[in-house]
Amino acid sequence: MSAQRPLILVTNDDGVHSPGILALFRAMQQIGDAVIVAPDRERSAVSHALTLHRPLKVETVGENIFSVNGTPTDCVAIAVQKILQRRPHLVASGINKGANLGDDVTYSGTVSAAIEGTILNIPSFAISLCGDRPFHFDTAMPFAIEVARYILETSLPYDTLLNVNVPNLPKGSVKDIRITRQGKRVYDNAIQDIYSPWGDKHYWIGGGKPYWEQGEDMDMQAVLDGHVSVTPIHLDLTNYEALAMLKKSPLNRSGKQEEGAC
Amino acid sequence: MSAQRPLILVTNDDGVHSPGILALFRAMQQIGDAVIVAPDRERSAVSHALTLHRPLKVETVGENIFSVNGTPTDCVAIAVQKILQRRPHLVASGINKGANLGDDVTYSGTVSAAIEGTILNIPSFAISLCGDRPFHFDTAMPFAIEVARYILETSLPYDTLLNVNVPNLPKGSVKDIRITRQGKRVYDNAIQDIYSPWGDKHYWIGGGKPYWEQGEDMDMQAVLDGHVSVTPIHLDLTNYEALAMLKKSPLNRSGKQEEGAC
Repeated sequence: MSAQRPLILVTNDDGVHSPGILALFRAMQQIGDAVIVAPDRERSAVSHALTLHRPLKVETVGENIFSVNGTPTDCVAIAVQKILQRRPHLVASGINKGANLGDDVTYSGTVSAAIEGTILNIPSFAISLCGDRPFHFDTAMPFAIEVARYILETSLPYDTLLNVNVPNLPKGSVKDIRITRQGKRVYDNAIQDIYSPWGDKHYWIGGGKPYWEQGEDMDMQAVLDGHVSVTPIHLDLTNYEALAMLKKSPLNRSGKQEEGAC
Repeated sequence: MSAQRPLILVTNDDGVHSPGILALFRAMQQIGDAVIVAPDRERSAVSHALTLHRPLKVETVGENIFSVNGTPTDCVAIAVQKILQRRPHLVASGINKGANLGDDVTYSGTVSAAIEGTILNIPSFAISLCGDRPFHFDTAMPFAIEVARYILETSLPYDTLLNVNVPNLPKGSVKDIRITRQGKRVYDNAIQDIYSPWGDKHYWIGGGKPYWEQGEDMDMQAVLDGHVSVTPIHLDLTNYEALAMLKKSPLNRSGKQEEGAC
């Protein structure tokens, strides 16, 4: 690796063998020294926290490609402390097979890797393809490069990552980047009553049509309009307006007593 | 159930048989009609999303106590649409065995139930005991009542839930509520090198001493000081300052083109 080129850690939650991570790896190789450290298999459904209850194994899968039998979060932690020769300039997570929009961001393994990078003070982004098979990873690649270049040149605000969602359309059919805010899905929460072969009543969630809060600057709307959505996601979930309000409420006896004691 | 009393949905991620949820149920019964709809077993490690790939079964466990073989999020959705006779006035999630502070909030099953309530526009709070066994659920009960009363009287700002953390100390040893912001854990990310019986190198994450950003108004600091921490958590993770900045950046070619076209 040359000292001049930025070091880019590439990870995901679909696993080291996903075509999405290989596309992201090739994209990042165009602008820096890229190293993959990713889960050994699909980990979308596993916990996003660090794995503390068992040892983790790193395997060399190829040149600058490593797998870990843990979560995306484990991969970022072990990569930074144990695998990479120097501190990475960027964490790139994806390209995920499926959208990470709106409230789903909280539950996304792809985004959680970017969260871990951000916690370690490394500028990070997550990138996902919005749609179903077949996935057009080549459509997302130039946008991954553009976002990575921007971050490497400009950095990112404290505690903030970029969540990138690309419409899953053939290359050339996607419009430019739109800067968006996190959308909000409003479930109609359809739940079907169904019965087992033994006549037991069960419920099956689904079949409803979730709709989204309207607004051109919403992440989902950008994707529906054929744009690439880039949302700055803040790790601090505090609602500061509500904080100020609650401090004046009867709940906050503590602060008032302390003021009185001064 | 009387029409006058508020209806309170009680859930958790430790499962319907956890002593923590029974303590919260008893507390909520003091101020309203309480109904438990909770996972049939401990679901801390499962996905927080809705279960869409299989039917779910509701079992009656006791009077106004139901279990679902799904996630805390499933429980809230099914309770509101299929089990409760009327729309609940409040969702109370907990009392969790262990803290939900700082960045861990994102991964918490206890908090995710309150998130689902909030998505459904029902005022919601999560409550957790910070510490290890033995758990002093009776310490947390009066604070659960105080927070629930406040929410029922005042409601909560849009898209916002309260995350309550109570020091796990004997009743009477805990100080009053402090309104806090979400803290930030800074890992030192200690990772031990260990070897299997066959000589394979492994990594075991842990053994480091995570420390927390300082600040009296941080959630963790409040708990360390013996106070009950109440943090208003916002579902919108957008960093709006960063959004404004990015809209002026070269990334946002799209918006500029649109402006040019007008």
